[in-house]
Amino acid sequence: MDRLERYAQLIVDVGVAVQPGQTVFVDAAADHAELVRAIAAAAYRAGARYVDTRLVDRYVRRAFIELAPEEMLTETPAWTMEREKAIVDGSALIMISGDPEPDLLSDLDPRRVGMARPLEGLRYRLAAQSDRRFSWTIAAHPTAGQAERMFGEPDLERLWQAVATAVRLDEPDPVAAWREHAARLARRCTQLNELALDAVRFRGPGTDLTVGLHHEGHWHGGATTTRFGVEHVANLPTEEVYACPDFRRTEGTVRSTKPLALAGTVVHDLELRFERGAIVDVRASAGAEAVRSQLDTDEGARFLGEIALVDGESRVGQTGLTFFDTLFDENASCHIAYGLGISSDVAAWEGLGPDELRARGVNVSAVHTDFMIGGPEVDVDGVTRDGRTIPILRNEVWQLSS
Amino acid sequence: MDRLERYAQLIVDVGVAVQPGQTVFVDAAADHAELVRAIAAAAYRAGARYVDTRLVDRYVRRAFIELAPEEMLTETPAWTMEREKAIVDGSALIMISGDPEPDLLSDLDPRRVGMARPLEGLRYRLAAQSDRRFSWTIAAHPTAGQAERMFGEPDLERLWQAVATAVRLDEPDPVAAWREHAARLARRCTQLNELALDAVRFRGPGTDLTVGLHHEGHWHGGATTTRFGVEHVANLPTEEVYACPDFRRTEGTVRSTKPLALAGTVVHDLELRFERGAIVDVRASAGAEAVRSQLDTDEGARFLGEIALVDGESRVGQTGLTFFDTLFDENASCHIAYGLGISSDVAAWEGLGPDELRARGVNVSAVHTDFMIGGPEVDVDGVTRDGRTIPILRNEVWQLSS
Repeated sequence: MDRLERYAQLIVDVGVAVQPGQTVFVDAAADHAELVRAIAAAAYRAGARYVDTRLVDRYVRRAFIELAPEEMLTETPAWTMEREKAIVDGSALIMISGDPEPDLLSDLDPRRVGMARPLEGLRYRLAAQSDRRFSWTIAAHPTAGQAERMFGEPDLERLWQAVATAVRLDEPDPVAAWREHAARLARRCTQLNELALDAVRFRGPGTDLTVGLHHEGHWHGGATTTRFGVEHVANLPTEEVYACPDFRRTEGTVRSTKPLALAGTVVHDLELRFERGAIVDVRASAGAEAVRSQLDTDEGARFLGEIALVDGESRVGQTGLTFFDTLFDENASCHIAYGLGISSDVAAWEGLGPDELRARGVNVSAVHTDFMIGGPEVDVDGVTRDGRTIPILRNEVWQLSS
Repeated sequence: MDRLERYAQLIVDVGVAVQPGQTVFVDAAADHAELVRAIAAAAYRAGARYVDTRLVDRYVRRAFIELAPEEMLTETPAWTMEREKAIVDGSALIMISGDPEPDLLSDLDPRRVGMARPLEGLRYRLAAQSDRRFSWTIAAHPTAGQAERMFGEPDLERLWQAVATAVRLDEPDPVAAWREHAARLARRCTQLNELALDAVRFRGPGTDLTVGLHHEGHWHGGATTTRFGVEHVANLPTEEVYACPDFRRTEGTVRSTKPLALAGTVVHDLELRFERGAIVDVRASAGAEAVRSQLDTDEGARFLGEIALVDGESRVGQTGLTFFDTLFDENASCHIAYGLGISSDVAAWEGLGPDELRARGVNVSAVHTDFMIGGPEVDVDGVTRDGRTIPILRNEVWQLSS
């Protein structure tokens, strides 16, 4: 098997763990056809009943955002909704990331760029995701455009090597390596859960942020298990352990430590201020409008939905690269996300509707945008429910021991 | 505007005549992305409400045909069916042809290759097409693979020029040129309809075939008008005038005069024998299995559904090229099609169900495959209902005058 086939196999076996008779959906850009082909073949060989691929061309999407009537920008067509229903009905969903031209939309009206999302379908999918009704994964396809952006030249081979390192494709047995890695992340979750933290505090240049944790939640990382008992890895790579904030209890300021690729533009030097959970001020040296527009999507968009901790052992962090792709960059360092609360795996929240979740302090939104706030200069402490302060990360080194 | 944009404009303006507020569907291979992009932009500029593109990767399709469980090969997924419903609900459908790798499926089981069609969706679409419930067109996207096949080298520019000639993109005002051309084809239809033919007879090397015409039908060509009054051109290019046979009255033998690209293989030297309308013998120097498998699709597959006349003035014929794409090759010379009867535009047949149509002599099938039977050596005569024989084509020159 060549590298592409081994990668497709990893996505099928570890990412979504395709089951015999399952329908597999692949959402990708037309630029990712090479990888999608290998995934389709690997999925059928793993017993998939049908592989449905949706290839979106980025210039067609550009034409849509630029030229469609405004009311269509947020519309979910009936046939797309029907596909969403089939996805969440116990299927496997593979999403391929990797934007070969992240600046493609930067000359368009940022308001329209931020708006252009099929809200009904997205809400439906995110709710089912929280409810663990299907297995899913996001994996990246290296493109020359991304390599150009990262290295200043279209060195696709160098990018492939970085991706292979990040997703442990360089291991002799990547499936076994992933099993071990997932177990290590699970141990960190156990350490954090045993501390019964009330909040996590980040301190560094431009940052003094306290994120209140939801007391009913707990820390997760590595693999996820669907309601029908299939263990899958939702992000390839993943290096984080994450928890759901109480969205009403974030206070302070934070400065992003990496650029954020968002809706076709790149946001640089993002700075946010929080009051009683809400983002009340947005600054950036570029792309602030795209963030502001997203925060206007719905009531929950300006509150946090996720907090995640990543240490310096991260395979992504060790590449020393900025990928301009959240899938990688969020695994290089600690991050938070505004928008939808990470509510899966919390038994007490199962089956709750959006209003019940919000009333309980779990955020609900059609948005979920991660951005990086960690790094060697950022200290991370836990604050326990009985008021003790416990160092978690210093100079990106994990401070807890089991 | 560059050539690609002018071509996209022609497809949008003449091919489907996009109306303000209309939804436009584009079905294409991933290889056609460049043209699809230009079409999407042109359609939005013409007032389209939403442009939905379905890009199919040919290797994903290969994996499907090779590896999917057999019962899935003919399945129409629920979300595809929902999309079909939206298409026929007064939308515009643009289908892009042009296979860069026509031999891609030639090593697969020809029975599976022939089977692999979403039958329910296809029947639904073909019925609505006959009923003129949406505007549609098929246009080609030149690819290097097709150029390689045609010229022995990937001379894409030469193929582009041939396509531009065939679709009158070389005219100063292509839209006006198409108006004139469609009027000329309409005049031929008038001539043929006034003759009230009972049958058409083809005679040439390996061919002595009499095709009985349906007495309720008439000849069509050029533009088609939807039930909601939009005039569109269903094939770009089109050079034919066509009619619906009485599927019970074809007799004799016919030898195809051009190769036929079918379901990923190429059929060479096809010879068919008809008895009381049915194809009872299939021979070919290559690809006979693909035809036989298609003829087994359903009851109607082995009966004729179309007869079409093309003279030597054809823009396609004048290029002297075989395009290995029915869209072009059928417009180079006279042809017939087995499968679904061309029943649109006949008022007496509107709203009839499949059983009623068959009982009346109009064929019904999920298949409709054209193949070429005309050329300089093939004489074409009409036989009138009162027994006269009237020359229609000699050495590819149209013999009727108005």
